[in-house]
Amino acid sequence: MAIEKQVARFGPFKEYIADGVKVGNLLTLSGQVSVDDEANVVGAGDISLQVRHTYTHVQSVLAKFDATMDNIVDEMWLVTDMEVVMDNIDALFQIRAQAYGSTPEVSQTLIQVAGLVMPELMIEIKCIAHL
Amino acid sequence: MAIEKQVARFGPFKEYIADGVKVGNLLTLSGQVSVDDEANVVGAGDISLQVRHTYTHVQSVLAKFDATMDNIVDEMWLVTDMEVVMDNIDALFQIRAQAYGSTPEVSQTLIQVAGLVMPELMIEIKCIAHL
Amino acid sequence: MAIEKQVARFGPFKEYIADGVKVGNLLTLSGQVSVDDEANVVGAGDISLQVRHTYTHVQSVLAKFDATMDNIVDEMWLVTDMEVVMDNIDALFQIRAQAYGSTPEVSQTLIQVAGLVMPELMIEIKCIAHL
Repeated sequence: MAIEKQVARFGPFKEYIADGVKVGNLLTLSGQVSVDDEANVVGAGDISLQVRHTYTHVQSVLAKFDATMDNIVDEMWLVTDMEVVMDNIDALFQIRAQAYGSTPEVSQTLIQVAGLVMPELMIEIKCIAHL
Repeated sequence: MAIEKQVARFGPFKEYIADGVKVGNLLTLSGQVSVDDEANVVGAGDISLQVRHTYTHVQSVLAKFDATMDNIVDEMWLVTDMEVVMDNIDALFQIRAQAYGSTPEVSQTLIQVAGLVMPELMIEIKCIAHL
Repeated sequence: MAIEKQVARFGPFKEYIADGVKVGNLLTLSGQVSVDDEANVVGAGDISLQVRHTYTHVQSVLAKFDATMDNIVDEMWLVTDMEVVMDNIDALFQIRAQAYGSTPEVSQTLIQVAGLVMPELMIEIKCIAHL
């Protein structure tokens, strides 16, 4: 049952994973994290900066498919320290709204995980989009 | 690439997240938890009650889209104590079947997370539905 | 709002969950783990074997829908020990590529969870496919 996939593969983990995969109207994105082009963590110890930087990666993946933040329908926030997130939740959701450009029309799930791919990462954001 | 979203935004966290987002036939729901209208946890220490109450929220979100539990295709159970869940798994899956009204035709993933948005929460349920 | 679901229900947990659910072009799979037909863990302590065996279950679910690994668009790796996974990441992704038969065109999210349904399990793989 052959399907037509369109794949974006770039960024520091491109040898391992595709950043985004489109089939039909569905675009799934790999979980994005706050790293630079050499896979160094951006914003160690700074959850606000990590959220802001992570969304720039989300936007980069979307752009490969001529999509924008408006196309996102669902996101998971996978965080390593819920207390830090909840203590800063209003600031973090303001950063989120800025990334979306307006109040996000997006379902969301926020959980604390036991770990991410690098110890300095405080958040990973996994999105589903619809084109 | 503009898309037509229909969004339900209600309940105690409506300032932060949309409870459900529909585009095309796809309806994504935010992770639901056992809280009342003032965001107080319902059923602290009682996993059975939390499962039952959480599904009432899932049903409320679905109802906003004229959908029912039959429309759910996938769910994640995000729990904070796997031992408690597995010790009560038959009772909990009976409560689940009651919420669905029959044997659920739903793919499921059950994992223990390191934390949820409030410490008293023992479970969060994240669903994807198809309309 | 009635929908047409096609469900595969087999394997050791079939009393509890459906392994795969198809509606329209969307096929959601339950998280798969490395167990045999009697729900005994295969490959306790051996992450490579668990990854390999888990993908055989993914393939079995897909086969029930006349689908193959090519149909997968998104996967989550839910692991219990990120250090073990990252120490073996090249070998594990080679096993993954073997399971796919070629470079996977799949978005991926890799997180460490606090626990899976059985203590000996080191990984659970949750996939979304498109038919």
